Amino acid sequence: MDFPQTEYEQRTAAAQRLMHAAGFDAILLTTEADVRYFSGFRTLFWESPTRPWFLIVPRQGKPIAVIPEIGAALMRQTWLDDIRTWPSPHPDGEGVSLLAGALSNCSVIGLPMGRESQLRMPLSDYQALRDQIGSVTFYDAGPLLQSLRMIKSDREINVLRRICGIGSAAFAEAGRLFHAEQALSDAFRAFKIELLKQGAEDVPYLVGGAGPDGYADVISPPSDQPLNIGDVLMLDTGATLQGYFCDFDRNFAIGQASDLARHAYRTLWQATEAGIAAARPGVSAQSVFDAMANIVSQESSDVGRFGHGLGMQLTEPPSLIAWDQTILREGMVITLEPSMEVVPGSIMVHEENIVIRDGTPELLSQRAPPELPVL
Amino acid sequence: MDFPQTEYEQRTAAAQRLMHAAGFDAILLTTEADVRYFSGFRTLFWESPTRPWFLIVPRQGKPIAVIPEIGAALMRQTWLDDIRTWPSPHPDGEGVSLLAGALSNCSVIGLPMGRESQLRMPLSDYQALRDQIGSVTFYDAGPLLQSLRMIKSDREINVLRRICGIGSAAFAEAGRLFHAEQALSDAFRAFKIELLKQGAEDVPYLVGGAGPDGYADVISPPSDQPLNIGDVLMLDTGATLQGYFCDFDRNFAIGQASDLARHAYRTLWQATEAGIAAARPGVSAQSVFDAMANIVSQESSDVGRFGHGLGMQLTEPPSLIAWDQTILREGMVITLEPSMEVVPGSIMVHEENIVIRDGTPELLSQRAPPELPVL
Repeated sequence: MDFPQTEYEQRTAAAQRLMHAAGFDAILLTTEADVRYFSGFRTLFWESPTRPWFLIVPRQGKPIAVIPEIGAALMRQTWLDDIRTWPSPHPDGEGVSLLAGALSNCSVIGLPMGRESQLRMPLSDYQALRDQIGSVTFYDAGPLLQSLRMIKSDREINVLRRICGIGSAAFAEAGRLFHAEQALSDAFRAFKIELLKQGAEDVPYLVGGAGPDGYADVISPPSDQPLNIGDVLMLDTGATLQGYFCDFDRNFAIGQASDLARHAYRTLWQATEAGIAAARPGVSAQSVFDAMANIVSQESSDVGRFGHGLGMQLTEPPSLIAWDQTILREGMVITLEPSMEVVPGSIMVHEENIVIRDGTPELLSQRAPPELPVL
Repeated sequence: MDFPQTEYEQRTAAAQRLMHAAGFDAILLTTEADVRYFSGFRTLFWESPTRPWFLIVPRQGKPIAVIPEIGAALMRQTWLDDIRTWPSPHPDGEGVSLLAGALSNCSVIGLPMGRESQLRMPLSDYQALRDQIGSVTFYDAGPLLQSLRMIKSDREINVLRRICGIGSAAFAEAGRLFHAEQALSDAFRAFKIELLKQGAEDVPYLVGGAGPDGYADVISPPSDQPLNIGDVLMLDTGATLQGYFCDFDRNFAIGQASDLARHAYRTLWQATEAGIAAARPGVSAQSVFDAMANIVSQESSDVGRFGHGLGMQLTEPPSLIAWDQTILREGMVITLEPSMEVVPGSIMVHEENIVIRDGTPELLSQRAPPELPVL
């Protein structure tokens, strides 16, 4: 476990208070982040799609793990007592009958099934489970879980502060790492290595691009094309520590910058300033979006949102977007990520990570300079 | 796209022949590997759970992409023509009505829903989709897709050969990278950096352990505990190139090795020899398992299987296990991964990656030495 047992006890107790109000007898969890949130069970083994893993949060008492035998030793190191296992892969199914047994006294089960959720088990096993447990009602537990996970504990914020510090320290080496004639893929590789050297445990996410006045998109893998004098190079990284993500980007001009690029950078920096100024407890996600959108309003943006929650996943609720009415609260960790089209076909994105505080938010990423840095 | 268009055309045509026989009007795909297999669309953006991505393989013609607008520019670089997008995140749902429109003329739809599958979209959206498209039958498309994806093309094998070569080159540096007194977490970090330097694009998976006669499990993240003289250090890596995985491990003794550890290593090496000798076209996955299990038979193993398929995912069908009757065919890429308990609480695992050929399989990983190497 990455935190003391009391962290997991508090999370479970908070969930159980909400479950009581919602009338849930249990919550069934199937994804890495949800299982880890309540158990402390952390492993890269989820990379293999072969085996499902289940955690049940009952109305009272500790969560119950229903997992493949291969995970039993690691799960026994967590705070859980009730660990039920099956030898997996198994010809007769992957844990469904164990799961049905563990849920046999429930009549209302919460399951994340709405926005941003996934069911990490075969659909036919889910249907078999429903058949086995009979007249049980499943309700969406997503909003309940999101309301808990959106507010980070001090322990979580400490880890997030450290990984954002590692990301900032790696970006501070940009002048040494990136240069003209370098293939974009080599720049990415150099930056990934720097993140690891600075103390990141993993770099599950690194995207970016380069071009004269911005870049074509923010989701492509890097090409082998060389960086040219005058290019804007952007790297956007989701590096992790103890399974918690940073998620921010930085823009650098190679050798020199066009006026258009400098203007766009300044606009986005100012939009982020407006976002920081607006991000206060009691304010809606939409309001923070609006504050940033007012600055970049002349420009179009296809990215769809100007930031999002951050934590055990690279992106979490809420979305900073025109329609998200989630009220910000102290302890929420979010990204501010305004973007704009610089010229047709080229965009620029700027991103910072903050904690909502009573007053000015705390910056987790080291604030980017107000003018586009030239390497 | 990582391959020429003809690769994707051949995959699609092969799927459509099987769809015709199965009576599927379309196959609906939602996961990274399945979408990439037919489209060539590769991005780390799947790391964000916010947005679903869909690909429809129709009974004839090119696949149809139904994706968030943010992915349109990258998808337009693939061989697809019909790309339908929505601005995401969206308050009214994530692509369900577009999907319903694209599937409106279908009465039988294939969807992966069995063993090893996941539905990467919110369950409530799947239910909404079913409501919108009316009296459509969904059948499990998993076996159809697995039968295609299990046989690798020469282009795929070339990439797998390269990433396994990178893994082997990184392991060849073990003597320089690992040493007594080094924290296990530092050994992992050094190895990850070496993999990147050797040319890996990513290291999504690196697990392992260390101990006097083996290690407690093979799924834990590394501790900060120092390596001791006499420890067996094991690292098991899933590094990637163009989105294809290697997956093999190596064991090293630090300074010296116990007789028990040397014996276990030799046994597992011989089990792998038996696996290589058994792995021929026309033979079942179970037969290869049996060949290895005969060597380690006196010992118990909780790992559950002695290998698996390998490709765009760290683990793919088949499983080398007592009940998997999948017949091996030329072009399949599998891991041979026998394991055994060395002393109670300590196991050892040995792993190689091979291509099934007409005759002796081709080793993709550089064959481990027959005796436990001492660093």
